[in-house]
Order: sequence, then C-alpha cells, then structure tokens
Amino acid sequence: MRRLQFHSARLLLVIDLLGTFVFAVEGATSGIQGNLDLLGLMVLAFATALGGGMIRDLLIGEIPPSALHDWRYAATAFIAAGSVFVWHNNVSHLPPSLLVTVDAAGLGLFAVAGAAKALDFGIHPMLAVLMGGITGVGGGTVRDILLAQVPTVLRSDIYATAALLGATLMILGLKLKMRPAWATALGATACFVLRMVGLWEHWNLPRVVSR
Amino acid sequence: MRRLQFHSARLLLVIDLLGTFVFAVEGATSGIQGNLDLLGLMVLAFATALGGGMIRDLLIGEIPPSALHDWRYAATAFIAAGSVFVWHNNVSHLPPSLLVTVDAAGLGLFAVAGAAKALDFGIHPMLAVLMGGITGVGGGTVRDILLAQVPTVLRSDIYATAALLGATLMILGLKLKMRPAWATALGATACFVLRMVGLWEHWNLPRVVSR
Amino acid sequence: MRRLQFHSARLLLVIDLLGTFVFAVEGATSGIQGNLDLLGLMVLAFATALGGGMIRDLLIGEIPPSALHDWRYAATAFIAAGSVFVWHNNVSHLPPSLLVTVDAAGLGLFAVAGAAKALDFGIHPMLAVLMGGITGVGGGTVRDILLAQVPTVLRSDIYATAALLGATLMILGLKLKMRPAWATALGATACFVLRMVGLWEHWNLPRVVSR
Repeated sequence: MRRLQFHSARLLLVIDLLGTFVFAVEGATSGIQGNLDLLGLMVLAFATALGGGMIRDLLIGEIPPSALHDWRYAATAFIAAGSVFVWHNNVSHLPPSLLVTVDAAGLGLFAVAGAAKALDFGIHPMLAVLMGGITGVGGGTVRDILLAQVPTVLRSDIYATAALLGATLMILGLKLKMRPAWATALGATACFVLRMVGLWEHWNLPRVVSR
Repeated sequence: MRRLQFHSARLLLVIDLLGTFVFAVEGATSGIQGNLDLLGLMVLAFATALGGGMIRDLLIGEIPPSALHDWRYAATAFIAAGSVFVWHNNVSHLPPSLLVTVDAAGLGLFAVAGAAKALDFGIHPMLAVLMGGITGVGGGTVRDILLAQVPTVLRSDIYATAALLGATLMILGLKLKMRPAWATALGATACFVLRMVGLWEHWNLPRVVSR
Repeated sequence: MRRLQFHSARLLLVIDLLGTFVFAVEGATSGIQGNLDLLGLMVLAFATALGGGMIRDLLIGEIPPSALHDWRYAATAFIAAGSVFVWHNNVSHLPPSLLVTVDAAGLGLFAVAGAAKALDFGIHPMLAVLMGGITGVGGGTVRDILLAQVPTVLRSDIYATAALLGATLMILGLKLKMRPAWATALGATACFVLRMVGLWEHWNLPRVVSR
C-alpha cells in the first residue's frame, strides 16, 4: 500500500479492513445457508475475505502473506463472522442492493490493490492483471469450493470481468504515467461501475451452448 | 521440533510419524468408501496426513515444506495406504473407539506442534493458534475437497475447536513462562480431552437455524 | 529446463508451450460441458494447463512460479481457451484418439520435466517422483475441484500411474549416469506408452470392493 504513495496509509488501511469486513460478512452468510456451525462461519468468513489475497501473496512471493503479518485482518474477519452469527436476522433483512453496492466497492479495491502489489513484486503487467483478478474473486472461489459448489464466479454475470477491467485500467494508467492514486481510483471506479451496471442490465458473458 | 527443546527429538519424530500413520489410515479408509483405486488411496492418505502441515509450511514460509524435506513422512503415508488396501477388512473391524482415540491424540499433537512452529517463524500468537488449527484439520479438509464433499470439520461437533483450544493453551503456557515441554503437553492433553469428552457427550457448536 | 542440458532450449520451450496448449484445450472443453461462460473457460484452461506446475513450484520453492515469470504460458492458455470458444464444434469433432495421443505426450513431458526441476531444487528423489506426478496431473485435479467433481485421476485407469512411472524411470536413468536428454526421453516415452497401452487394454488399478 505504502508503495502506492497515498497521502494517508491509515485511510487505506481503514478501507482495506472495511473491504475485509464486507467480504467476511458475505462468507459467513453463505455459511449459514450451508448449515455450518459457528466455527464453520468463522472459517468461511476468513477464507472469503482473505483467501484471494493469501493466494496472490503465495504466488508473488510475499510469504508469510500479509493477512498473517497483521492480526487485524483475521480479527476483522472473525468479528464479522461473530456479528453475522449474533445478528443474522438483521443481516438477512438488509436491502440486497446495499450489500451488492458495498461488495462491488470492495471488489474494485481488492482488484486494484492486488494488481499494484503484484507489479511491485516484479510480475509482468499481463500477469499482474491476473493477480488483481485473483485478489478480487479468489476468496469467493475458495468459499464455494469449501461448500462443494462450482464457483459462481465461473458461470455467472460479469463479476470477475469487472475485477480484471479495473486491474487493467489501473496498470494502463500507471504505464501512461498517471499518478498512482489517480490510476488506482480510475481502476477501482471502473470495476465498481461495470459491476453495478452489469447487475442492473443483467449482463452476462457469452457462453457456448453445449450439445 | 528441536526448537521445543524436548529431551528426545527421536521420541518426538516417532510420535509425529505415528500421527502421520493414523491420519493416513483414515484418509485411505475414506478413499475406499469413495470407491477410489490404489493410487487414489495413496493420494488421499498423503493429503490427509500431510496436507495440513504442508499448507501451514507454505503460509509461514518453510519452503519446501518439511514433508518434502524428509522422505519418511511420505513413506509412512504410503505404507499406511498400502496397509489399508491389503488389510481393509481388518481395519474396518477395528473398534471405532480405538480409531477415534488415536485420532484425537494425533489431533492434539499436530495442533500444538503446528502452533509452536508458527511461533518459531515469528507469526503473531493469535495467528499461530490459527496455524495450529490448520495443521490439525487442514489435511482432513483437503481430503473432503478431493472427495467433493463439504469438509465435515466445518459442520460437525467440536473437532477443530479442540485443536484451537490446544494451540491456545500451549501458547498461553509459553507466554506464562512454562517450560516448552510442559506447555506442549498441556495443549495436546487439553485438545485430546475436549475432543473425547465432546464425542461422548455429543457436544456441538451452536449454529444458526437457517430460514 | 536449461539445467537438463538440452541442445536446444528453444525446442524445449516450444514443446512445453505445446503441452500447455493441449492441456488448456482440454480444460476449456470441460468448461463448456460444465456450462461456464467465456471467462470460466479461460480460468479452467489456465488452471488445467498451469495448475500442476504452479503447485509444484510453490512446494519446491520456485516463487513466483515459472508460469508467472513468463507471460507466454498464460497467453498460450488463454489463446487455447479462446480457440475452443470460437471453434468448439470443430474441437468436439476432432477424433478422440488424436486428443488422447497428444494428451499422453503432454503428460509424459510434464511428468519428467516436473521431476527434473524438483531434483534441481534438492528434493529427495522419491519426493521428486511425486512432484513429477503432481506436475502431470495437478492441473486436471484443480480443474475437477473447480467443477465440484471428484478428480477423475483418483478413480480411473492408469493416468497418474503413467506419470509416476515416467518420472521414476527418468530419475533412475540419471542415477545410473545416463545423459540427461536420454533419461528424459526414456521417462517421457515410458509414460506415453504405458498411458496409451493402458487405454487400449482398458487397464485399471486394483481397488477394494467397498462393502
């Protein structure tokens, strides 16, 4: 993060923890639908919120992953799981549009932050885009695998596509000598907008009709 | 292990290989139920016995993982798989209480050893507890994923909870300046006792009743 | 690769990319059967073609994995996925015997190359055989997990066995002071032949009849 030269590393940390919290709430909510116990909820919250970043860190060589450097990430995920456990009725009554909006914001942030980190570790820009995508959707994929389901990201709408677009625009911005903060804002915003418009318009990627 | 300053590293290695053998037997037995062939049994035995430790090693930065440093771990897992293949009728006639007891002992050992190793690698104590839990239950989780099932550890009784308790007590003991061997024994015993009592009493973690 | 002292590193790269292309085509084809969208096809192609090598690289300590060092691997996988998407009818009309033959050749190459790389990183020969097997079948296993299926390699015929045989013979050859190129050719050929003969003869590994 520091490497992105934001004026306020503290602001970024808060945003990052917010994203972690939102993704963890979603993971724990899936766990309730899967009839898991409290510990299962905590595991799913942790995996959903931090799994993508941990896979990225293993691949680019940040070992131990940053989620294991700083206990606040795990604590945030577990607090989210506990909150879902205690207030699950309230969570399930939140307007879906609110959850989806916050999730799209988290997706954009995770995607650009992941791509930026991969660049910092000397990964080729094309593969850094991929790392941004993994950061954004990897956690949800691990969650679906733990629930023995085909990851929804592989078959539905343009969730991962938005993450890849955001990462691509950020990297293009950096190549065009934009200031890092602007490139990051551009990528995250593009990801957020594409995700929201895609939802409203029920966009889907094309698929082959299987015989 | 050496770092725990036991009087006999050889004793610990024997115990560790015993735990590996027991977990491998369980993995291979699951493979028979899943109708896998001999190689599938070997893969499941290896993954169940050594998967948790390998994930932990990747995360804390012990690369290659210790299971790839020392061929005796893999050999133990494969011998266990071969034994199950040859003597599966005898294995399936062993009293379940014996298997469960040995498994609980292995769980306790793996959990405290995993947490201790994470501490040695400079991981924050709260996250070291998590690494202990992963060491104890990670292999079974990988096995269940390979069998396309929701990991049982996420939904049933207090298996993982026992591992986390054991790791927590060991780390607390170390913080309170207990001698490492005593802290380890305390954690492993607590894990074992909680696991066994939980089984006898049919304890389960609370869960949310999904609408 | 360079370490195997081939006369032509370029030839080997071409062969390696060919294997990547073939495995990626198979992964994308599975994605069509699983009713995934275009992005899902690309993910499956990438995971099938490069997943085994990436797991091996993480385990032996080549981080970032070579698939993230060289963008040509990812590009090859994505081109394969795009080709399947566009020409899926043609792909599905290719004679199965052709696909199976090319796949067996790719399996042999991946298995011996994986084992050789593990040896180079100082892994014990017995475990290097295992790394060869993971290189050959790991990608297909990740693909099956993403599709929420029990990996076919765990239950059917002698696919993984051929990979392990090829890796074993190559390592034996090196130990017997064969020239690296000859040992590699021996291992890859043995894997290919065993795989093809096993298919023709419908060989399967023995399995336990579950009660």
